Amino acid sequence: MAHIDLGVDEVEFPGIRGPMRFRPETAKPLNDLAEVLLRSPHSLSRGERELIGAYVSSLNECRFCCDAHSAYAAAQLDDGQAVVSGVLADVDSASVSPKMKALLRIAAAVQADGRQVTSAMVDGARAEGATDVEIHDTVLIAAAFCMFNRYVDGLGTLAPDDPQRYVAAASRIVEVGYR
Amino acid sequence: MAHIDLGVDEVEFPGIRGPMRFRPETAKPLNDLAEVLLRSPHSLSRGERELIGAYVSSLNECRFCCDAHSAYAAAQLDDGQAVVSGVLADVDSASVSPKMKALLRIAAAVQADGRQVTSAMVDGARAEGATDVEIHDTVLIAAAFCMFNRYVDGLGTLAPDDPQRYVAAASRIVEVGYR
Repeated sequence: MAHIDLGVDEVEFPGIRGPMRFRPETAKPLNDLAEVLLRSPHSLSRGERELIGAYVSSLNECRFCCDAHSAYAAAQLDDGQAVVSGVLADVDSASVSPKMKALLRIAAAVQADGRQVTSAMVDGARAEGATDVEIHDTVLIAAAFCMFNRYVDGLGTLAPDDPQRYVAAASRIVEVGYR
Repeated sequence: MAHIDLGVDEVEFPGIRGPMRFRPETAKPLNDLAEVLLRSPHSLSRGERELIGAYVSSLNECRFCCDAHSAYAAAQLDDGQAVVSGVLADVDSASVSPKMKALLRIAAAVQADGRQVTSAMVDGARAEGATDVEIHDTVLIAAAFCMFNRYVDGLGTLAPDDPQRYVAAASRIVEVGYR
């Protein structure tokens, strides 16, 4: 049971979906932000951007967001399930490009504390071909998931155990998006 | 100097203002979220909501956000400067209502980790008269500042030393808002 009465069946509307129904006024900009960051035209693919979100959610140990965005990443990456599992287990040995590894290192620093991002990390990403927009968006995606994770867990929302729930949600996100 | 070329004079556009000019597509939902959370009609005053943001920014040691939102809170609370200084120094002895103290305790838990919010904290806030919307918005304001703080610091933006810069910004926010 969530900490407040969300006015919904939490089994039907788990995780962030309950608070978003409870407060549509704040759901609107939150979904707009997710749509721009994770799905708008970009040099990072949708799968790569979802992977950053899943990774940060994993570091924050937010089960709902991690399982949801892992499914969204897996659905939009080649050999997605293996790539996502690899990144969550160990970025250094994961099957992603050197550029993605450098961006994921920046995301991990942001998750811990924005001040932990160093010039060396940014230079490292740039040396692997990352653009300023990619670095900016990596920082903001990581920061945004530090918000989403705290929103979901701070209200004590439900995270489904059934992996099929996240796969079904992934189909909806891939097809329709966040809005 | 910020970690990326924001394309602006950072002295003129310090803190979050540089990244917002650099990437207007993400600035839009971020400003929409700030406007709804901190300024839309609410049972918590604008000053009280800014106070939650300033307090979380202080816990995250994000100087730009803390100084900016402290100024915005002070400008919109009775005896504002003293109230803000008191809360940043010690919530328990600060000159705010028992309800605000209970909400600030929830905000501090969210800042540390969403999972640190307990039923006892929420019951405590409710016992002091907090509504479910107030508890929801406190959680989301705290979570949102964990994003804004990481965004500002993760990009290594400039925080002005001159307190007058924040006072001038406060006049603009009080009059015009975030959009």
